[in-house]
Amino acid sequence: MISKKMREHVEGSSVIRAMFEEGKRLAEQHGAENVYDFSLGNPSTPPPAEINDIINAILKDEKPTTVHGYMSNAGYEDVRLAVADSLNRKFAANLGAKNIIMTTGAAGGLNVILKTLLDPGDEVVVFAPFFSEYRIYVDNYGGKLVVISPNTADFQPNLNELEEKLTSRTKALIVNSPNNPTGVVYSEETVKNLAGILRRAQKKFGTDVYLLTDEPYRELAYDGVFVPYIPKYYENAIVGYSYSKSLSMPGDRIGWLAIPSEASDSENIIDGATVANRILGFVNAPSLIQRTVAGMLGLKTDVSGYDRNREAIYGGLLEAGYECVRPQGAFYLFVKSPIGDDREFCRLAKKYNILVVPGTAFACPGYFRIAYCVDYSVIGAALPKFGDLMEGIGNISR
Amino acid sequence: MISKKMREHVEGSSVIRAMFEEGKRLAEQHGAENVYDFSLGNPSTPPPAEINDIINAILKDEKPTTVHGYMSNAGYEDVRLAVADSLNRKFAANLGAKNIIMTTGAAGGLNVILKTLLDPGDEVVVFAPFFSEYRIYVDNYGGKLVVISPNTADFQPNLNELEEKLTSRTKALIVNSPNNPTGVVYSEETVKNLAGILRRAQKKFGTDVYLLTDEPYRELAYDGVFVPYIPKYYENAIVGYSYSKSLSMPGDRIGWLAIPSEASDSENIIDGATVANRILGFVNAPSLIQRTVAGMLGLKTDVSGYDRNREAIYGGLLEAGYECVRPQGAFYLFVKSPIGDDREFCRLAKKYNILVVPGTAFACPGYFRIAYCVDYSVIGAALPKFGDLMEGIGNISR
Repeated sequence: MISKKMREHVEGSSVIRAMFEEGKRLAEQHGAENVYDFSLGNPSTPPPAEINDIINAILKDEKPTTVHGYMSNAGYEDVRLAVADSLNRKFAANLGAKNIIMTTGAAGGLNVILKTLLDPGDEVVVFAPFFSEYRIYVDNYGGKLVVISPNTADFQPNLNELEEKLTSRTKALIVNSPNNPTGVVYSEETVKNLAGILRRAQKKFGTDVYLLTDEPYRELAYDGVFVPYIPKYYENAIVGYSYSKSLSMPGDRIGWLAIPSEASDSENIIDGATVANRILGFVNAPSLIQRTVAGMLGLKTDVSGYDRNREAIYGGLLEAGYECVRPQGAFYLFVKSPIGDDREFCRLAKKYNILVVPGTAFACPGYFRIAYCVDYSVIGAALPKFGDLMEGIGNISR
Repeated sequence: MISKKMREHVEGSSVIRAMFEEGKRLAEQHGAENVYDFSLGNPSTPPPAEINDIINAILKDEKPTTVHGYMSNAGYEDVRLAVADSLNRKFAANLGAKNIIMTTGAAGGLNVILKTLLDPGDEVVVFAPFFSEYRIYVDNYGGKLVVISPNTADFQPNLNELEEKLTSRTKALIVNSPNNPTGVVYSEETVKNLAGILRRAQKKFGTDVYLLTDEPYRELAYDGVFVPYIPKYYENAIVGYSYSKSLSMPGDRIGWLAIPSEASDSENIIDGATVANRILGFVNAPSLIQRTVAGMLGLKTDVSGYDRNREAIYGGLLEAGYECVRPQGAFYLFVKSPIGDDREFCRLAKKYNILVVPGTAFACPGYFRIAYCVDYSVIGAALPKFGDLMEGIGNISR
């Protein structure tokens, strides 16, 4: 028998992943071109061709025992230094190699930092809607998730409610901007206000409250929107990054944590995260791909394809009568469900071969998520189906 | 502040890893050629040249969105099938693609299967001496470690004591053959007797007891010794494998779990392990290296270098007056400390620039571990120092 908790996890297994599998089945049944799968944030833009060139050069030039061998659990020193330097250049940060822990993607990084920080019963705050895995990651280490209800007006976080829900047990917040699932970017005003609230709470309770900022979508921003570098506004901010989305390499599992020296107890957090990387079984971020990171730092993310998708599907859905806050980042659209029950809506959508994820999966019922990281042609083909779906719902309601 | 548990982990941080760092420092101080670092199981044999050829071919021939993209959390179907087929050929096993979960090394695999199986308070049995990380992996999921004391006569497991310590809460055993730290291979008789004891316990308590067999050293066996394929002897056996040692690629973090259909509750364990891979933050075994596995299955591990090292250091140490059970696998020697306090012995050894790990780190005081996966020249240079060390100890004792 598997454990009680795992039985629950398996039964309630990721709605998003289940959709991904369902999409594969539907594609086999109806032909891939007749299925409109907007379920998974699997980048459609291919990784930059330079990635493979960088890997080839490493295989050719570097010692195999280095490329495939152990290194310190925190990562290769030269790679950590390269990441620190690039952040210093971009954001006038003050990071050294020691402040960077190379991780097995952002999911690995979040698990590492939560393992490092959480005592059982510690509270971790998230703003709904949020990426559903956060709930499980916090539970992995005995933490208690505190959910702030959504601000559906513009999907900036609900800071009034935050202030009420901070306690002496609040150990961390997880924020994610550009946001999955809303595509919203937290404004500088939001970040400043958030920092102010957290500082007041730290003072009031005599605690440290860490702001864990999950940033796999940082480079996916449109309309020239400003994406604040949160550690500039708040000392106890730890950045988790991944190349999964920005460079379209989610399978490779590579990212990092930046733990600034300005953060309280920084040295212990760095040591703890290094040990956590080891004892959680990651041991180290995968070596060959880790070595490519230094070369990848100069690569530009081409967001023009996603931007074109965004304009097309956002405009098309509005025209078909859907309601949605205009997203400025990531590759998601969070759309109001035309019927109250978002899960029922997603079931109806499936009849039109449209796969989208219900908002309940993100703790925000009444909405659904579209991942528009698909071929442009899929959007063109899907929009009439979204129209038919809306019309079909109208006929049912009538 | 970091968590209480992580503070303890950081303070008691891996002795082995600490030695590795110490080795780097000593090498800088005295020159690498004057330091005899036997502390870490970091393979000295370079990975087979074919590995890089396989990676190059994948980068050239396969779609970048496949090579760097998401796949099912359990791994690529074709890779899982290739692994299953190779085990079927080698061991007349009866595995399909569904029975294989691709993992982030064996450390990742063990964490995944323990997360899948353990309810808090469940007992996991290990035989001393054992790889110290097992203690932490079990603790990660609230399990209780039950240690069987060492059988120092030949370092086969102490099965009499096992029988006494099995309870209705025993959920799993972890075994590791060829063994770290002893280099001993479990005999067929051992495995048969072990299977008999576990079957009796299952019947007595009405439970399932899973035998988790951690096999990164399977291919590193000498003297033509027979390494039993444990699932042939016991139905509830789950194999964890890694290419870290056999193909000298520990940095890449790639391995698999084999969960046979014959195991109780097999379907749920497979589903659970797939979900655990995701929710622990591994998400999937690193994609590019995972794709190389299919090509790696045909590669032969060249153990001749390790074998030569083994003969040289084993013979040399006996000659210098040390006592040791002749190892037939892995690349470790577990030597009796000439003084009772093995930690004190390791401190003395460091004065001769010899780095070895105390047996207490493996729950077996009075011994020390030598990892002989080093250049042959290191052994030749170190043996006189081991002699000096023994003589120095003799002088102290006199």
